[in-house]
Amino acid sequence: MPDTALEPRAAYIEALEIMRTASDLGAASALLGWDQETYMPPAAAAARADQLSTLSAVTHSIVTSDRAVCLAEFFRDNLRHLNGELSDWEKRIARVFTRDVLRAIRLPETFVRRKTQVTALAQEAWKQARQQASFALFRDHLAQIIELAIEEAELRGYQDHRYNALLDLYEPGLTVGTLDPVFRRLEQATIEILRFVRDAGHVPDDSILKQHFPGQAQLAAAQSIIAQMGFDFSAGRVDLSAHPFCTSFAIADVRLTTRINERDLRSCLFGLIHEAGHGLYEQGMRSDLERTFARDGASMGIHESQSLFWENIIARSEEFWHWALPILRAYFPEQLSDVSPQAMYAAINRVEPSHYRIESDEVTYNLHIILRYRLEKAMLEGTLTADDIPHVWNALTEELLGLTVHNDAQGCLQDIHWSFGGIGYFPSYTLGKLYAAMLRSALLRAMPDAPDHVRRGDFSPIRQWLREVVHQWGRTMEPSELISAATGQPLSEEPFVAYVWEKVKRVYGQE
Amino acid sequence: MPDTALEPRAAYIEALEIMRTASDLGAASALLGWDQETYMPPAAAAARADQLSTLSAVTHSIVTSDRAVCLAEFFRDNLRHLNGELSDWEKRIARVFTRDVLRAIRLPETFVRRKTQVTALAQEAWKQARQQASFALFRDHLAQIIELAIEEAELRGYQDHRYNALLDLYEPGLTVGTLDPVFRRLEQATIEILRFVRDAGHVPDDSILKQHFPGQAQLAAAQSIIAQMGFDFSAGRVDLSAHPFCTSFAIADVRLTTRINERDLRSCLFGLIHEAGHGLYEQGMRSDLERTFARDGASMGIHESQSLFWENIIARSEEFWHWALPILRAYFPEQLSDVSPQAMYAAINRVEPSHYRIESDEVTYNLHIILRYRLEKAMLEGTLTADDIPHVWNALTEELLGLTVHNDAQGCLQDIHWSFGGIGYFPSYTLGKLYAAMLRSALLRAMPDAPDHVRRGDFSPIRQWLREVVHQWGRTMEPSELISAATGQPLSEEPFVAYVWEKVKRVYGQE
Repeated sequence: MPDTALEPRAAYIEALEIMRTASDLGAASALLGWDQETYMPPAAAAARADQLSTLSAVTHSIVTSDRAVCLAEFFRDNLRHLNGELSDWEKRIARVFTRDVLRAIRLPETFVRRKTQVTALAQEAWKQARQQASFALFRDHLAQIIELAIEEAELRGYQDHRYNALLDLYEPGLTVGTLDPVFRRLEQATIEILRFVRDAGHVPDDSILKQHFPGQAQLAAAQSIIAQMGFDFSAGRVDLSAHPFCTSFAIADVRLTTRINERDLRSCLFGLIHEAGHGLYEQGMRSDLERTFARDGASMGIHESQSLFWENIIARSEEFWHWALPILRAYFPEQLSDVSPQAMYAAINRVEPSHYRIESDEVTYNLHIILRYRLEKAMLEGTLTADDIPHVWNALTEELLGLTVHNDAQGCLQDIHWSFGGIGYFPSYTLGKLYAAMLRSALLRAMPDAPDHVRRGDFSPIRQWLREVVHQWGRTMEPSELISAATGQPLSEEPFVAYVWEKVKRVYGQE
Repeated sequence: MPDTALEPRAAYIEALEIMRTASDLGAASALLGWDQETYMPPAAAAARADQLSTLSAVTHSIVTSDRAVCLAEFFRDNLRHLNGELSDWEKRIARVFTRDVLRAIRLPETFVRRKTQVTALAQEAWKQARQQASFALFRDHLAQIIELAIEEAELRGYQDHRYNALLDLYEPGLTVGTLDPVFRRLEQATIEILRFVRDAGHVPDDSILKQHFPGQAQLAAAQSIIAQMGFDFSAGRVDLSAHPFCTSFAIADVRLTTRINERDLRSCLFGLIHEAGHGLYEQGMRSDLERTFARDGASMGIHESQSLFWENIIARSEEFWHWALPILRAYFPEQLSDVSPQAMYAAINRVEPSHYRIESDEVTYNLHIILRYRLEKAMLEGTLTADDIPHVWNALTEELLGLTVHNDAQGCLQDIHWSFGGIGYFPSYTLGKLYAAMLRSALLRAMPDAPDHVRRGDFSPIRQWLREVVHQWGRTMEPSELISAATGQPLSEEPFVAYVWEKVKRVYGQE
């Protein structure tokens, strides 16, 4: 029973206390996770799994305590009627609290435990299956995961389409109804762009990127570039890990990781710029979001828009290389002696369909997402079973990318996401690209000389603008509200399509 | 009310569950602490303090929950009567659980909060005071800390002497009645040894230690030596920090830190051997102590005995340098070209009174501890006030070490311990030295050729023996039980005094 006798300010202060405890435990979990990927000795893996699972259980019990639920129900029922008792900002934070608590009690503990068990086994099986390129090893696990996803959607509730329940986990408020037409138009435009690229009949030379670049120099160069972007090293740091990521334990404690490939200039550099884009978001939040549930990205897609904004919009622009090339040349004088900004721009913007999502360029990447999106919707509709997946995957790869899949390791086993139960996650990647391009258009309207700033390496006006329209808000706005306020329009593929056309025309000539 | 209706095995399993949760939270706290000293960006300090304090509050609430107390009271009242329901080993673990839970509820929360506040301010004040060599800045804080210590002793309860309540926190079961005569005889013997050293009329040359030794080589050499000692790098690692320490998050996750002084070979090498001694203890515990309260050293003194055993007994022996010198020479060929094991042995065993505890040699170190022990006992007796401390400190330094204190920074402000409320802690350091020497005597009886193993760098029989008699037990034995079982005698200064006489006679000649 919601407690209608609560005093609003006292309730808010109590909610803040619960958020502080849960956030601090969450920070400890995040540190355990960061350490696991960076410094943890190998023999500690089993103990670390226990520690992470205990932290998560204790946090869950705090967020779903009777008192937390009582406060959340009070806010759910009364927040819109409160006037004067709480500021607008406090109401926004209370709304995030309410959302998280009520979401946390939606799934029965038996279901959560079952999902944890199934996905733990599925992840192990997936590793084996991918290594041996044998879908058979993963099939039964995937079948269970599809069943669980259907069950989870039913438990969480949805309108119109079951998949909406899962989309909402990563992109609050987004529905199939909104996404379908956007993805349809994006697919169509992408296919036209690819036809243009193919017809251009020439392929930019990217051999300059594939020389030998010593690791220490790569790391130093990339760090100096993200420092110039504005990543604050007094409130963050960079370490190495097998898979790059960004995590944060506080606004003043943001950790990035990167990896180095001495035979490819892109891996460390663009990887670290990408993570620093996430990092600037985390460092740029309003300080009074600290230790609340609102200290996080508005959504996966919005978070990804920040990393992609810096990685693609900024660092894959020609202007950027007018500034960055002399800097990199100081680290790699021989390798980069004869390279012009134009040649670098062409090399890093080569478009080429690949079997692998993570090796894809800006243009073909979205086709990988659209493929997965179609499969996931069908899984949730119950019209696609685990058995169907390999051949449907392969047929779609042929249709969308024009590539033949030779084995399931380069096909439906390439991604880890389904094995951890992350159905609904993939669209975030493309949303990130679309949001980033929408933000680019808005920036160019608000600051027409932004490209000149980039050419001089003066990123602070751009970073300030992003902070203003995106970073500071954390989760206090839903993604659709945030993106409309920042860009003046709702989710659209148009700015992205225009941006990509502009790029491929410059790189592949004949306007 | 203790629940006498509990079923012993069910109660034990429930206690294990509570210990697992609390241990995992404790591991997360320890990681937050490790990270703070090694990699944390500076701006994160305030957020980290919040996180540590939340983790500690949540852990405390689990350990002092009604159910935990109920189980502890059941074990307290019934453990000795249980036969067959629990194994002897399980009873030992249940005893540690009982002890910790009942200890945790002894202090009222208001007292704990007050102590936290007072010591937080006192630590800041102490830093200022030491920097400015001004006791006046610390005086009021110290007065409050002495009051708190008296109050805490009364709350915890004791027999015979109030100080016993505090000693028991670090060295369970130890009393002033046991310690007084041991320290008296130790003081007497130390003064005789110092007279012998002074009369010898010569001072070993330690200039070989004070050449330039590049940092990376120092670290590599020290790591190769602790690997040979048996520190398992697959279940541990080494990082740098301002103050060296050892911490562990699991038996399979033991972290050491060290620091490097490029103008002194001792700092990194002996520091890391010391921490590795702690680390071998942590890595050597029985695996079924994992995630119980018994996975820790038997006491501060026993833990310190393990670090000092390796640092002093082993690595400050002449035999060690027969093996280690060629290894170090590979890293420092020029610096160590003309050095013999004998010269190294003399250089690292020079005896010289110092104002500073942490700069002291094996012989004079204990006089610093005896000085603090005398002061702390008098504080608890109420016969020594904060105002008295500087002049009493200085008089005792003159009496015991023959040194004049020129300012309080080299006198009573030199140690951090009182500022964090750690009255009762200092004796552990000397206990570590005495236990280490007792273990040395026992080892030589059990394994007369141990010095030959050291001379060959074959440390595994010695490590195995320590594991057998000390490491594996964790906290399942109280220190007095452990040391008696391991050495066949109760706490005694005799082995230490004999060991030191032997050393100074070798180093300072004429035997």
